[in-house]
Amino acid sequence: MALKIALAQLNLAVGDLDRNASAICSAIADARAGGADLVALPELATTGYPPEDLLLKADFVAGNLESLEEIASAAVGITAIVGFVSSTGSKLGNSAAICRDGKVESIYTKQVLPNYGVFDEQRWFTAGSELVISEIAGLKCGVSICEDIWSSEGPARRLAAAGAEVLININASPFHRNKGQERRELLERLASETGLKIGYVNLVGGQDELVFDGGSIFAAPDLVARAEQFREELLFVEVDRGTAGGPMSADPDPVGEVYRALELGTRDYIEKNGFAGVVVGLSGGVDSALTATIAVDAIGSDRVVGVTMPSRYTSTATRDDALELAARLGIRLIELPIEGPFQAYLDALAEVFEDRTPDVTEENLQARIRGNYLMALSNKFGWLVLATGNKSEMAVGYSTLYGDLAGGFALIKDVPKTLVYELARFRNGGEADTGPIPLATLERPPSAELRPDQLDEDSLPPYAILDPILERYVELDMDSGAIVDDGFDPGVVERVITMVDRAEYKRRQSPPGIKITRKAFGRDRRLPITNHYIGTGRETAG
Amino acid sequence: MALKIALAQLNLAVGDLDRNASAICSAIADARAGGADLVALPELATTGYPPEDLLLKADFVAGNLESLEEIASAAVGITAIVGFVSSTGSKLGNSAAICRDGKVESIYTKQVLPNYGVFDEQRWFTAGSELVISEIAGLKCGVSICEDIWSSEGPARRLAAAGAEVLININASPFHRNKGQERRELLERLASETGLKIGYVNLVGGQDELVFDGGSIFAAPDLVARAEQFREELLFVEVDRGTAGGPMSADPDPVGEVYRALELGTRDYIEKNGFAGVVVGLSGGVDSALTATIAVDAIGSDRVVGVTMPSRYTSTATRDDALELAARLGIRLIELPIEGPFQAYLDALAEVFEDRTPDVTEENLQARIRGNYLMALSNKFGWLVLATGNKSEMAVGYSTLYGDLAGGFALIKDVPKTLVYELARFRNGGEADTGPIPLATLERPPSAELRPDQLDEDSLPPYAILDPILERYVELDMDSGAIVDDGFDPGVVERVITMVDRAEYKRRQSPPGIKITRKAFGRDRRLPITNHYIGTGRETAG
Repeated sequence: MALKIALAQLNLAVGDLDRNASAICSAIADARAGGADLVALPELATTGYPPEDLLLKADFVAGNLESLEEIASAAVGITAIVGFVSSTGSKLGNSAAICRDGKVESIYTKQVLPNYGVFDEQRWFTAGSELVISEIAGLKCGVSICEDIWSSEGPARRLAAAGAEVLININASPFHRNKGQERRELLERLASETGLKIGYVNLVGGQDELVFDGGSIFAAPDLVARAEQFREELLFVEVDRGTAGGPMSADPDPVGEVYRALELGTRDYIEKNGFAGVVVGLSGGVDSALTATIAVDAIGSDRVVGVTMPSRYTSTATRDDALELAARLGIRLIELPIEGPFQAYLDALAEVFEDRTPDVTEENLQARIRGNYLMALSNKFGWLVLATGNKSEMAVGYSTLYGDLAGGFALIKDVPKTLVYELARFRNGGEADTGPIPLATLERPPSAELRPDQLDEDSLPPYAILDPILERYVELDMDSGAIVDDGFDPGVVERVITMVDRAEYKRRQSPPGIKITRKAFGRDRRLPITNHYIGTGRETAG
Repeated sequence: MALKIALAQLNLAVGDLDRNASAICSAIADARAGGADLVALPELATTGYPPEDLLLKADFVAGNLESLEEIASAAVGITAIVGFVSSTGSKLGNSAAICRDGKVESIYTKQVLPNYGVFDEQRWFTAGSELVISEIAGLKCGVSICEDIWSSEGPARRLAAAGAEVLININASPFHRNKGQERRELLERLASETGLKIGYVNLVGGQDELVFDGGSIFAAPDLVARAEQFREELLFVEVDRGTAGGPMSADPDPVGEVYRALELGTRDYIEKNGFAGVVVGLSGGVDSALTATIAVDAIGSDRVVGVTMPSRYTSTATRDDALELAARLGIRLIELPIEGPFQAYLDALAEVFEDRTPDVTEENLQARIRGNYLMALSNKFGWLVLATGNKSEMAVGYSTLYGDLAGGFALIKDVPKTLVYELARFRNGGEADTGPIPLATLERPPSAELRPDQLDEDSLPPYAILDPILERYVELDMDSGAIVDDGFDPGVVERVITMVDRAEYKRRQSPPGIKITRKAFGRDRRLPITNHYIGTGRETAG
């Protein structure tokens, strides 16, 4: 009475019905070859996740049902549980097909549809209500889908009461920092409470702003098997009434897992969108250095081009650091000084600007010339422009629309500045100056270098203070009073909140980037641009 | 046994708790002064609509409850029905308070929560289940909220069965073309089927991408009263068991109502965000001419600045048209030739571009110089940049990121090119060359003028063919086969669909603009950027 389960964490692509079906059929064959009785595939495996409004296209849903037929016919000599879109009348379900003997034997439909954070599942799907239990190799196996196990209203307890011994939960669960630990604790608790042995299979891969980290696990009730994060794997687990076991990957490193999430998210955005290479502006600062380093790790140094775009305000030191970084990474470096266009703009605008003193206008012009250079290289050579802004800047609007915010992908846009430094040091592998990112870059005070002697701290609180305030306001929705109660200066808190609220219009036009925190900007945090509430009580602004 | 109802269509601002409460209290006083027994205010009147993730802030919800106290205390000598956010434990409701004798007498909570199109109400709210009926001036009045009456699962039939004679439906219903007629037909049918006399009060005003058009109505069962669109009004309706009546506004003009929606949406975006003025690039083409004209109608000619930015490819004719338009509108015109920066870019890029032939890169550079000029004027003088792209261009990606897509607000982004011409002719008031937009602008074939003798039709199907294909693909989610069945050339249909799918990344970074069709780009149509499904069957691209 032993059941061998294969948890197939695959990297599937949204909309690629044919290739997803092929990958699923291959995984079924591999699982069978490995002796598995049961193979579990991710949530919405046929379509990729999230398919969003592709689900409103009847031909897309029909295509996914054709995929399911093909997959079911491959499920011979093994039971396969695969996520797909079911269609009943005008209603769609986020469903799992239990396939056996070459056909679909039963269908379970997700009962708890997440509609918060990045999730909009109630936009497309109708919740199911029926339980499904299949006997496989003598054990009674129930099925659930992702959010189902996070809610007390999900089917797990009802399945246990109905006699299920094993629960297969199929997922497309996006990464954020430390989410693996949250999943583990949930699974161990649920397994302990219900007596179910629980297999959790997760999607892997990048999809626009989301990264799915894999890290599939099995709890019985303690964790007995865990797949790697950020790569495809077939995790085999042996289960019988008494025990369960399988391979166990190492505990994730809290900074390293973020680095790898950024690497995979970047690689998949580039590859799934078919770009030959990428181009990054290198300022000599840590944001662009980290961005370029991740890009090289993701797709190789021969497909990454750096551009240094010095201005009249660029110091020799920062320019040298950009050259040094490019040399250490082994990437091509293009130099395009911005002085020529900058002077041409100033000349053209002189009459209309009359005798107004230079201000942020001239700073933004320089940033936008750099954006234009990068976009021109992108247009001419087909390279994706990687924007280099971090989450702290995105939050307070310390960035230039169409300037440093220009680009197709802003891979560190959800990384707070303090974590940017941690990631750079992690990748460098220590404090010796032997990693890819020059130590001088890490040690120099941050500056935009858009006017003489400019430092970030002239305009912003130190990042060691700014970032914890931002975490409380943006990620935890704490109000100003509660943040002040945590020990921050009231004036600084109000200033930061006001900056965050006023910068919504910039974020709305920023490139996509990779979610790595509990709450990213973008679809994770949906605030109006026109907004008279300033988050510090009932005062009004605007 | 007569009931006098006031439907108070107010222009409320998202997040402006204090000012909204004041406006609501004033409307209550005005309704009482006008002899009303009952005054109905819009859905979520306290917070403005849609408050989005402001609802996740506990202090915001608490502030809205303070507003309700203030409003209830003003409801003396009259019954007020007002939309607000109710809070029970951790659950929020989209609710209506029935206020009488200075306090909240009962609360109805919306039962049908829309979660499609632009709506995400299930993200924040829990549906209610109880009916509320109040006796007012001897008539039994039930309450419902917006979507409630569009669903057969809503409370209307149950209210009628429970003895209600009048139904007050409070709304925040965004405009699209012809929506007034849809609402009228629904109300007349529902009133006829249930025997209820139905009052429908709607919000008015612009909020980011949405315009609420007011146009409040009363059906008994035929339409007996209708307020104006696009402005605040207190619509008084006299109701007794047998009859009902009130003022009736004229039928809307199908093109004129779109013009007024754009005008109000633009005005409110400018005023609610506190801009002193706006700046528009004038190309001599119809898109920029219409944009500037709407802006002048919205905020006056003294707050609108035009900029003509001729290039080596600009014809004398288009430049003259831009000058003529500015003269007719009475706006300031700034001239900023782009040749200087363009040559400076070409010089700077010459080495890296080597001997590559000019292509879209050089065209985009010119568009981006114009974007930079406009943003520089915005930065220096605090003007909002109005982008001028239309929906046809947005759909197929016939536009330059950070170039003609640069700006804070793209007011005609949901207007197909063919409708741009209709709106221009509507505003001109006829075919004589006496309106604001020069006839020459309307008669010249559309061109981006980014290379010699360029015409839109070199790159795109004629707009008379393109626009109907786009309507079918974008607004109606028809697949290619169904579009071809409507009589379009299969090759053209496939080409258009491919262009639409591939341009998603550009739309993601475009400025907000005003929804005027059934389905706008933006939160109305949520598609992945990384998407291997190309909408023409099961083929894959990528």
